[in-house]
Amino acid sequence: MKLYQNESAPNPRRVRIFLAEKGIDTSAIEFVPVDILAGENLGADFRARNPMGLLPVLELDDGSCIAESVAICRYFEEHHPQPPLFGADAAQRVAVEMWNRRVEFNLALPVFMAFRHLRGQFADREPVIPEWGEASRAAAERMFDWLDGHLAASEYIAGEHFSIADITALCAIDFARVVKLRIGDQRPGLQRWHDHVAHRRSAAA
Amino acid sequence: MKLYQNESAPNPRRVRIFLAEKGIDTSAIEFVPVDILAGENLGADFRARNPMGLLPVLELDDGSCIAESVAICRYFEEHHPQPPLFGADAAQRVAVEMWNRRVEFNLALPVFMAFRHLRGQFADREPVIPEWGEASRAAAERMFDWLDGHLAASEYIAGEHFSIADITALCAIDFARVVKLRIGDQRPGLQRWHDHVAHRRSAAA
Repeated sequence: MKLYQNESAPNPRRVRIFLAEKGIDTSAIEFVPVDILAGENLGADFRARNPMGLLPVLELDDGSCIAESVAICRYFEEHHPQPPLFGADAAQRVAVEMWNRRVEFNLALPVFMAFRHLRGQFADREPVIPEWGEASRAAAERMFDWLDGHLAASEYIAGEHFSIADITALCAIDFARVVKLRIGDQRPGLQRWHDHVAHRRSAAA
Repeated sequence: MKLYQNESAPNPRRVRIFLAEKGIDTSAIEFVPVDILAGENLGADFRARNPMGLLPVLELDDGSCIAESVAICRYFEEHHPQPPLFGADAAQRVAVEMWNRRVEFNLALPVFMAFRHLRGQFADREPVIPEWGEASRAAAERMFDWLDGHLAASEYIAGEHFSIADITALCAIDFARVVKLRIGDQRPGLQRWHDHVAHRRSAAA
């Protein structure tokens, strides 16, 4: 199989960390680099694999393609269930779904919006609205604060177990540096959690 | 159990349709109305149930709360597996995950953004940026066109079976009328699909 991806984009990193946490042998996966800045993801070749023009994409050996990071992760969860990263039982699966979405919509999405609308990296292909970038950056910062409180009382994002929600949060928070948003010294809960998850071996994947 | 919800908001509707498709007896569920316009969802009582201040929320009999529409739907999928609305086998579950996300991020989210930033309904609680509203409306309209082509060749959003992705798309498309976005007469694929799903009994839930 092939994973179409990019080394510096946050969403492909989610899949690479997920694979590492699963202990999946990636030597059987061909990592195909896609140049986002050059717009390779918007070309006909790439759109044949994902019409939305977004990374990452997993191409199976039969030629079928899976887009969306979380759908790709779910593919690996289905085929390599251990360790479970979407929850080990019904209650955990529901909690992971809730928490992964909270982190996606209230943290990752605002960070990505801030990046696109403050940095204007993709001004060749989309409207760039700095005011929206500022509002998004402020929303992400509020979520940093809120997660700080949450993680003062919770080992991981979704409770007692490491899950895909931690991977989503780690990739969003690390990427937030591009819009000068950092955890800093005043958020001990978030800092404790980040020190822990960023030092797992998977974080280097 | 209790479902904190609102009759005119699109996300609670997703859960009501999901329950109807499952054939779950809702007489055992107390539907608690939450007045979004009055900001009831931002008060301390509601935030104790969902700190994000968003609807819907499912409160179980032990007092624990599940937020995020898709997490609530997954709770019911876990406890009432038939008919499966997240996919019947591994391949379908991955496809439904991909398609539900495509519809959420490329259709539902832009429609909600257009509503908030063009109508300014929540100007008392968030920045309103009409330029972002316009860009979001245009993005949603492009997705209407793209889905029209997709649904010319596919019975349902995620393939041969009705799924949560159809529910997400139906609720987003019906809600899009608030920003004057309609399927119209020039999108036969989307129209065929909408005629079908909007006439299922569940759509009235």
